[in-house]
Amino acid sequence: VTAPPRLDEFARIARFFAPLAGVGALGLRDDVALIDGPPGTQYVLKTDAIVEGVHYLPDDPPMQVAQKLLRVNLSDLAAKGAAPLGYLLTTALPPSHDEAWLEQFSKGLAADQAAYGIFLLGGDTVMTPGPATLSVAAIGTVAAGRAVLRSGARAGDIVHVSGTIGDAALGVLAAKGQELGIGAAEKAFLVDRFRLPQPRLNLGARLAGLASAMMDISDGLAADFGHLCAASGLGGVIEAARVPLSPAAQAALARDPARLATVLGGGDDYELLFTAPAEAAEKIRALSAGLGLPITAIGRVEPGEGVRLLDAAGRAITVEAAGYRHF
Amino acid sequence: VTAPPRLDEFARIARFFAPLAGVGALGLRDDVALIDGPPGTQYVLKTDAIVEGVHYLPDDPPMQVAQKLLRVNLSDLAAKGAAPLGYLLTTALPPSHDEAWLEQFSKGLAADQAAYGIFLLGGDTVMTPGPATLSVAAIGTVAAGRAVLRSGARAGDIVHVSGTIGDAALGVLAAKGQELGIGAAEKAFLVDRFRLPQPRLNLGARLAGLASAMMDISDGLAADFGHLCAASGLGGVIEAARVPLSPAAQAALARDPARLATVLGGGDDYELLFTAPAEAAEKIRALSAGLGLPITAIGRVEPGEGVRLLDAAGRAITVEAAGYRHF
Repeated sequence: VTAPPRLDEFARIARFFAPLAGVGALGLRDDVALIDGPPGTQYVLKTDAIVEGVHYLPDDPPMQVAQKLLRVNLSDLAAKGAAPLGYLLTTALPPSHDEAWLEQFSKGLAADQAAYGIFLLGGDTVMTPGPATLSVAAIGTVAAGRAVLRSGARAGDIVHVSGTIGDAALGVLAAKGQELGIGAAEKAFLVDRFRLPQPRLNLGARLAGLASAMMDISDGLAADFGHLCAASGLGGVIEAARVPLSPAAQAALARDPARLATVLGGGDDYELLFTAPAEAAEKIRALSAGLGLPITAIGRVEPGEGVRLLDAAGRAITVEAAGYRHF
Repeated sequence: VTAPPRLDEFARIARFFAPLAGVGALGLRDDVALIDGPPGTQYVLKTDAIVEGVHYLPDDPPMQVAQKLLRVNLSDLAAKGAAPLGYLLTTALPPSHDEAWLEQFSKGLAADQAAYGIFLLGGDTVMTPGPATLSVAAIGTVAAGRAVLRSGARAGDIVHVSGTIGDAALGVLAAKGQELGIGAAEKAFLVDRFRLPQPRLNLGARLAGLASAMMDISDGLAADFGHLCAASGLGGVIEAARVPLSPAAQAALARDPARLATVLGGGDDYELLFTAPAEAAEKIRALSAGLGLPITAIGRVEPGEGVRLLDAAGRAITVEAAGYRHF
């Protein structure tokens, strides 16, 4: 007799937590909750945790750990078109995380508070014998009814992404010492993309009213596109050759084309993935130009269900999904 | 050369986190934050984490772990006079926490959602190689300007507590197998008081407008009375002989009077500690009678600073503070 296979995080959430969700929780399918705020507004609530050795590397600089912790949450607010307001912080720290670590960690928080105009609202600090476990509950505001959900895509909509894809997943490999056969500057760029996500708050806010569905890419482009289409009750296709790559990622792919699976399947991009009707193309181009941030059309939403990734010859590509997810 | 002593949690919060606090965070001294809600209301935000082996015992029933996790947060909402609305849940679970554990854990959440009229709003679920780390961010509502803060006590106010004190601290000893020299029923009562706090939501809501300052007792009566008086810029005194004890705690104290230090210094009571002017005595008596919940006057707020615990002969009692706290 063998033990039954462990349910993955998707199945665990669907089975044990989704039945507990209330109004505002969006069925736990949108990574955020919405509650009424002052007249004309809603609050967007989001929580995300990171564990030492799982989501960040033990020797990552504490300042950057703090910034990553905040930014992965701000990225979810961006993906709803919300403006960030503040956050609650919970730290479970082992004795190895001493005052020197905390000093650098709090400096990282302070730097990003200034950068994003947010403040610490409260929190909890506890001791643990295990790895450091850090969680943030972030709060943002959005005009009432204007939050962009995952579930709003329509058949025929064009699929867009901001920035470049796959840098962080390649950066993890580089940070772990894997030889990618690229230059030092390119390697540093990729590692920085892993350690310091750039939440696309300006873009997200301007896409409210323009995008039909939106989310940030944290589990990997392939998996997250699947989440968005499933939430919308539709299917879709992405043309891999159109997925925007940084020069560093292009160099890594040139050395080993099999790394495409890492680019499309790896997580931690924290770029925005959104859908919009074809008529919005001109407005999206203007937005991209105004913000100095690339926005690239990479596919389309289709009737039916399931998503496909196609290579330049139109053949299906299979990528492995990341082993964890958020709800 | 020896390492500098590790700062305790108070000092860590004051040094590293308090400078990051914004409007609504109440200087991180009130265990909650306040943000504006729909007209006439404010939201009360609170987060509290528990770690396996630190805040609960590995063999505690998962249903009760879930209930304790929710209730320690609801208790903080109660202490502000707020009504609970919902919560975000973050779970970092090791492989040992299998589906059977999760099934019982989610049953505990469901039971308390029904009991307290709250819903899951969202969350995050991650894997950890370390002990289970569970955190909740709870959200409640209170009429605007009516939240009862820690900082509102005035010299001459009477200090009150709800229920009985010290049961949970004695219950921890009993759960760990320490021989208290009491009967099985008394022991079961004390362990239950440790495992299943009773957030005093009805009492808290009715004390808004009546209590001058309020908090729940989580770090122990002695330490938390110190927090309340410090937040109010005052001092105070508690007469130990007036502190209300359950029959089980009385039995344990009769066997070993030195356990008074555990009763006054141990944590996890989750009763309400509040101050009110002497003129409120009649209303408080009526409240207590109406709710069927003992409320006992145990001391008074005084000018100056620092708090004293006095025995029946008027001699100062020293108790050791709990080794952790929340902010």
